Amino acid sequence: MSHKPLGKVYLVGAGPGAPDLLTLRAARILASAEVVFHDALVHPDTLALAQRAEHVAVGKRCGRHSSAQAFINKRLVDAARKYAVVVRLKGGDPMLFGRAQEEIDALNGAGIEFEVVPGVTTALAAAAQIGTSLTRRGVSRNVTFVTPRVGKSEQPSDWARAVVAADTAVIYMGAGEAAEIRATLGARGVPMSTPVLLVENVSLPGSREIGCTLGEIEWAATQLGSGPCVIMLGEAMRDASIASYPQKQACWGTP
Amino acid sequence: MSHKPLGKVYLVGAGPGAPDLLTLRAARILASAEVVFHDALVHPDTLALAQRAEHVAVGKRCGRHSSAQAFINKRLVDAARKYAVVVRLKGGDPMLFGRAQEEIDALNGAGIEFEVVPGVTTALAAAAQIGTSLTRRGVSRNVTFVTPRVGKSEQPSDWARAVVAADTAVIYMGAGEAAEIRATLGARGVPMSTPVLLVENVSLPGSREIGCTLGEIEWAATQLGSGPCVIMLGEAMRDASIASYPQKQACWGTP
Repeated sequence: MSHKPLGKVYLVGAGPGAPDLLTLRAARILASAEVVFHDALVHPDTLALAQRAEHVAVGKRCGRHSSAQAFINKRLVDAARKYAVVVRLKGGDPMLFGRAQEEIDALNGAGIEFEVVPGVTTALAAAAQIGTSLTRRGVSRNVTFVTPRVGKSEQPSDWARAVVAADTAVIYMGAGEAAEIRATLGARGVPMSTPVLLVENVSLPGSREIGCTLGEIEWAATQLGSGPCVIMLGEAMRDASIASYPQKQACWGTP
Repeated sequence: MSHKPLGKVYLVGAGPGAPDLLTLRAARILASAEVVFHDALVHPDTLALAQRAEHVAVGKRCGRHSSAQAFINKRLVDAARKYAVVVRLKGGDPMLFGRAQEEIDALNGAGIEFEVVPGVTTALAAAAQIGTSLTRRGVSRNVTFVTPRVGKSEQPSDWARAVVAADTAVIYMGAGEAAEIRATLGARGVPMSTPVLLVENVSLPGSREIGCTLGEIEWAATQLGSGPCVIMLGEAMRDASIASYPQKQACWGTP
């Protein structure tokens, strides 16, 4: 019985959205891919770089089920038995809220070679877009990235503890949890006047920025559409938040 | 008296080191640059993409003086009065420990247009290199990026508070502060058995990974060379830390 040599799986970060925020390495690997399993939100122009490949959309936009993840894992393993170059293309960076570890564990378990290609994560592209650094001398010397979303089988996350301890916080996948964010951080003593900036569809045409305070975050979330959004929070965001306040009121903070 | 139109300054992330971890956008802007002010550690192949440009090395490798930063700010402003396309090329991402805000403020103050091009930050490239996600279901749901280095004019940073509150922490520019990291985190109750991974020269040939525990971090730092290093800390690092332990001892944690 002969065994075909196994292919290699590349877990590739597609970056925050704009096709030209892909890395050169990712572009090269996509060009040689035979099959690409991609997140729903990957830009069509990025997928188009995989000219030779079959394109397979996998994963729900937010909060996939475990069963869906197990199915993706299986498809990656099966594909590596059939193709030499398999790409799993994920929005942002694979190693930050990308659930890459579950796919890596499955590939390791099946003895399949893999390589991770890092990408520009959305928080950094959002900071670039608003022209405001996440760290700033004398204001912010550390940054935390959290998500208030947890799987159904998990304990409630202690995401708020990390936010409270950090100078600047970026909340991924949090726009739908604005009420919980305000209540949980408020209960831990974060002032309602803390500057907040929400950025929807980071790096894409039609991206929107809304500045507000923590106390106004639910209202601000209702002003956004259904695109993915990051919430940036902390003193380093003050000027950018004021500049993006919808009415640019002098009374920012007391609407 | 005629005024020449002012040029535009691009603050560009060069990524973690490997030239092909640059973004497509950064490569395109470098190709059109007339002058590039670059950090000392930017790869020669990345600089070579700026074929038309004058190349100017600026900045000390670690912890520039304020005066040096003010001088860089002035050179950027002066260059934008002379050239149409000015690039400030920074290692990693400009908005995370890149001191970009001081340059942005100087450009804003002089009325000069600027644009920030995000890059792959070193922590994410390190996670890709070791094949270990910074977030992991049921183990780590948030990540904090800190540096224990602070300017001479600043208060001691509360970086340790952010590390203690996070599931996974990545310490930038910390290899020279290993003794302080161990002592400060230990004093805050972080167990000496906490898994740690140091990665030197992330994404470059000859990159080295050393796994250890928090209690062994000073010893581990002495095993590294003089290249830039990130220190990754937390339960999500356990397997990668054990795999990179120099002697791969069964008795990891009790050398």
